[in-house]
Amino acid sequence: MSRKQFRTLADPDEARETIDSLALGGGTEVVDLTEAHGRVLAERVDAAVDVPGFDRAAMDGYAVKARDTFGADESDPVELDLAGTVHAGEEPNVTVDSGSCVEISTGAVMPPGADAVVVVERTDETTRPDGETRIRIRTSVTPGDSVMVAGADIAAGARALGPGRKITPREIGLLSALGVDSVSVVAEPTVGIISTGDELVRPGEELNSNRGEIYDVNSYTIAAGVEAAGGEAVVYPHAGDDIEELERLLRQAADECDLVLSSGSTSASAVDVIYDVIEDRGELLLHGVSVKPGKPMLVGRLDQSNGGQSAYIGLPGYPVSALTIFRTFVAPALREATGQPEPATATMAGEMAVEARSEEGRLRLLSVGVLEDGSGSRLVYPVDKGSGATTSLVEADGVVAIDPDTDYLSAGESVTVQLFSPDVEPPALLGIGEDDPALNELLDHLGPVRYLSPGSREGLRRLRDGLPDLAVVAGPVDRDVEAVSVGGWHREWGLLVPEGNPDNIEELEDLVDRDLRFVNRDTNSGLRTSLSNALAEVAEERDISRHSLVEAIDGFEASVKAVESPARRVIEGRAAVGLGLRTTADKLDLGFVSLGDQSVDVLVNPERTEKEAVDRLRSELDDLPDHCSSLSGYRFAGE
Amino acid sequence: MSRKQFRTLADPDEARETIDSLALGGGTEVVDLTEAHGRVLAERVDAAVDVPGFDRAAMDGYAVKARDTFGADESDPVELDLAGTVHAGEEPNVTVDSGSCVEISTGAVMPPGADAVVVVERTDETTRPDGETRIRIRTSVTPGDSVMVAGADIAAGARALGPGRKITPREIGLLSALGVDSVSVVAEPTVGIISTGDELVRPGEELNSNRGEIYDVNSYTIAAGVEAAGGEAVVYPHAGDDIEELERLLRQAADECDLVLSSGSTSASAVDVIYDVIEDRGELLLHGVSVKPGKPMLVGRLDQSNGGQSAYIGLPGYPVSALTIFRTFVAPALREATGQPEPATATMAGEMAVEARSEEGRLRLLSVGVLEDGSGSRLVYPVDKGSGATTSLVEADGVVAIDPDTDYLSAGESVTVQLFSPDVEPPALLGIGEDDPALNELLDHLGPVRYLSPGSREGLRRLRDGLPDLAVVAGPVDRDVEAVSVGGWHREWGLLVPEGNPDNIEELEDLVDRDLRFVNRDTNSGLRTSLSNALAEVAEERDISRHSLVEAIDGFEASVKAVESPARRVIEGRAAVGLGLRTTADKLDLGFVSLGDQSVDVLVNPERTEKEAVDRLRSELDDLPDHCSSLSGYRFAGE
Repeated sequence: MSRKQFRTLADPDEARETIDSLALGGGTEVVDLTEAHGRVLAERVDAAVDVPGFDRAAMDGYAVKARDTFGADESDPVELDLAGTVHAGEEPNVTVDSGSCVEISTGAVMPPGADAVVVVERTDETTRPDGETRIRIRTSVTPGDSVMVAGADIAAGARALGPGRKITPREIGLLSALGVDSVSVVAEPTVGIISTGDELVRPGEELNSNRGEIYDVNSYTIAAGVEAAGGEAVVYPHAGDDIEELERLLRQAADECDLVLSSGSTSASAVDVIYDVIEDRGELLLHGVSVKPGKPMLVGRLDQSNGGQSAYIGLPGYPVSALTIFRTFVAPALREATGQPEPATATMAGEMAVEARSEEGRLRLLSVGVLEDGSGSRLVYPVDKGSGATTSLVEADGVVAIDPDTDYLSAGESVTVQLFSPDVEPPALLGIGEDDPALNELLDHLGPVRYLSPGSREGLRRLRDGLPDLAVVAGPVDRDVEAVSVGGWHREWGLLVPEGNPDNIEELEDLVDRDLRFVNRDTNSGLRTSLSNALAEVAEERDISRHSLVEAIDGFEASVKAVESPARRVIEGRAAVGLGLRTTADKLDLGFVSLGDQSVDVLVNPERTEKEAVDRLRSELDDLPDHCSSLSGYRFAGE
Repeated sequence: MSRKQFRTLADPDEARETIDSLALGGGTEVVDLTEAHGRVLAERVDAAVDVPGFDRAAMDGYAVKARDTFGADESDPVELDLAGTVHAGEEPNVTVDSGSCVEISTGAVMPPGADAVVVVERTDETTRPDGETRIRIRTSVTPGDSVMVAGADIAAGARALGPGRKITPREIGLLSALGVDSVSVVAEPTVGIISTGDELVRPGEELNSNRGEIYDVNSYTIAAGVEAAGGEAVVYPHAGDDIEELERLLRQAADECDLVLSSGSTSASAVDVIYDVIEDRGELLLHGVSVKPGKPMLVGRLDQSNGGQSAYIGLPGYPVSALTIFRTFVAPALREATGQPEPATATMAGEMAVEARSEEGRLRLLSVGVLEDGSGSRLVYPVDKGSGATTSLVEADGVVAIDPDTDYLSAGESVTVQLFSPDVEPPALLGIGEDDPALNELLDHLGPVRYLSPGSREGLRRLRDGLPDLAVVAGPVDRDVEAVSVGGWHREWGLLVPEGNPDNIEELEDLVDRDLRFVNRDTNSGLRTSLSNALAEVAEERDISRHSLVEAIDGFEASVKAVESPARRVIEGRAAVGLGLRTTADKLDLGFVSLGDQSVDVLVNPERTEKEAVDRLRSELDDLPDHCSSLSGYRFAGE
């Protein structure tokens, strides 16, 4: 068997055309009106009945023969006999003859003989000497006044709603008025999702990290994306390592779905199986697209056992790449199939906050974050954490497409951000800096904000470059950055040791003088700065170089990322001592050797002090001590 | 029992505050990750595991001790023994000792001893004389190169997502990566919907128009609105005329829901019951708001049998009023309760196309339509069909709020349109004019366009005023309006009579000379114009006045609205002859007496010829003859 060769990468436009040619969906289905919200009408709906279905009183008042009122006015009213009453929902049991009238409620059927309604405000009730009630009419009306004739709202046979019409609450209203309780709508394409890769485990299941297992990110992410684009997602079970099972699942999905998406394949064997299934019973249309990320995209068709074909698209494995390719190539095709144009919220205009470089010759789908600058403009900045990082999903908001001919976007350039999905809401505030438990409490009260915690130094560096709204900086600062301090606190730091302090660690010198495995934080963190400063003092006391001092600490140069990470290494038995906070020790039931207090400052970008979210930040800072009552080792201003 | 009095109408802001004070919802619930899309996180989610959970190869290549590669480059590579292989999803069964390396796939667990990966592109495989494979390394790496250390993406204990975060596909992705399969989200408030009014019948059920029954529009419309605003709607059965049943339903809804909405009440008795239930076991907070439409709004609380209280809001009965009040006062409160701000698509900026007047002293919520002018601006025009018209639901797109202090919006003034719901899509094209079956086929192929059919004269009048994109005009035109004709057709018109023509009607004169009940079209319709012209010829032949001629036609002055309406009156036996088209006669199996052909012209506003939708119109006009093959009595250009 000779494998079909794709020597060159397809152009992105060619990939789009190929996907368009797959002709997803196109069917229709009948749904109950109560299920129709958000769907798209497949056929025109003509009114089958007149609305209203009868000549209807449009006001409360008296049904009359208009000619009986001719000439009547305030100074010269006419009097009519009251022949009866008609309420809404009642069949009139009375006729209006010349000289008489009938009391009528808004919405009631006009009684025979009447051709107009006099509104109640222009009438009086009088009683004749014989006790009979008469109605004094103080205005003249013409035929049709205050009457809605049958079909005046919409007439039977008239075109009410056309095909392609999105069904929102108001369309539900008109359909209700017509008595329609089910409608023919564009069918949602069924999209099967198959994850390949032996290492994938479904969320909620047990993970064996020693085997290199990771949670399957793409299945549920893409399923949610499919639903946001108007499709119906079916997530198939993992085939795992079982080639025959994978083949069986692909065939089952092809039979059951309009489109099969696979993703997550990192093992060559899975790709081979997909290739074989497509070449054996299907058609490979395209392999490889000149786009970054997403180059390995596959597009083809899978034969169904009933003689038809299902579309197939192979997405890249990394989550950000998979979502980017889905959003750029697959979601538009699904929307097209369901007749729903991309909502306006799916894209956002902004300008580059910093420059961004791209490789020429390939379409670059650059992950970006979006930020309001406080004066109504949106700033767009690249988020490049490497394609394997799942946190890019929430640290970025979408992608900017950079043309293959462009190698450079300059700061200030206008760009369009394609949000990961139309419901993505860029944050109201961007903060960068130290990882801190009290800050986390503060963030919980600020609503949708974005805070990245690469450490105090990185926060300061980015604040100096003008990107974030704020930086949170712990410990001594060796750099002068223009900023407005809006608050802060102190936190107690030191060494974290196993519960009960089995090694009897008493002071910093124990780290240097004893043979203890240590876990450090990285050089961007304020904790590391305070530790380094404390060690510099020890070195000075001992009159030795700082370098030779830290060389004596086992593990000093290897570092971990987050505030609790050293503590967790100690719990796992991978180290005897870790750098951290008193509150972390208390939370995780570890021993703690205090080395001091360090300040934490919240520094606001001087250009962003007017932002509404900064006001909210200031006011929540006032309440912070209350929110942090469960944290130990903290001191707040005024306490 | 003294009824609580509300002598003055509440201010709209007071109504808003009262509704805010009802404190809808506020609960939380735990949902599966697969059901979490679109919900809002109620609690912070911290990472419970490191992601990745192990030191992970970031590239395909060879896991090495970095120090073994120091000094290696293209011209001076180092050679290492190949000690084994590790794939993704496998537990390494080999250790990297000094001088050796292990082949590794992207995503695989770093084997013990290795601290970096050399990418495969910088290596060669060689074979020693003894047949052993060795790997030539052509670059030097430092510890950590091409390795993602455990927790580098997100570390256990770190804040991953905060409360208030909307769960979109990307959040599903991060939660998946953390292994989270259920999340605590803000509960959707349960909203009970009760329709009052004896005359209401649910869509799909049989309607008795003689009793004045109409379909219940509000229940399903408001239910869809509740769902669009993030609530869960429960539609209760109709109580009809049964006071005790209505009381029982109100109590049941109060027990089962966070909010009870009633609407549709036009009968005084229903309002009395609601009053009584609220005053007896509940609290009436507000009755009557200074807003048009919507004045009779009620706000209160209903006691629940468990001792709690449910919120209650009484909406006005007319559909447009009910949806307007729901959108303006209730939807914002529901969004607030679910932590979801109003989407940006819920409002739209535009400028008034014509002036609009308002009554001072009350907030006016003016129904408006929205139109693109083709140069990127949005034009806003009032749609005032009277509050009882359900077609306003689809002829308008939303409302413009006019301040109580303002009595006048001038043409060109900037306004904000509050769309009826965030998913409302204003049409791409607005046409006004004749009701015509071929035109309906054309419209079916144009996608979401709005066409109003008050008749040719009204279409021309509005086109002259510059509002619509196009007018469709049938029959002879007595007015010269600047327009670009983009196409047209001819249609055969005449008299419609019962099947078999039992009265043997042969010509127009029969209408005049015989005693036949006739159904006419209104004076705006092109059919009426052609009929009047034909009658004028008869009058001239007979040398009598046109007036005395039409006086002789029974029913000439009474008219019905839509193209099929006269035909339907004939079918119902309410008339012997109707004015209409051959195609209508054929469709409805009626007899037809031809009186001639009339032209139908599609006239485009000269300022809008560049609109994309006008291009689509031109191209669909070319295909129109094909779409109209089932229509009789039509002639298209070129045929």
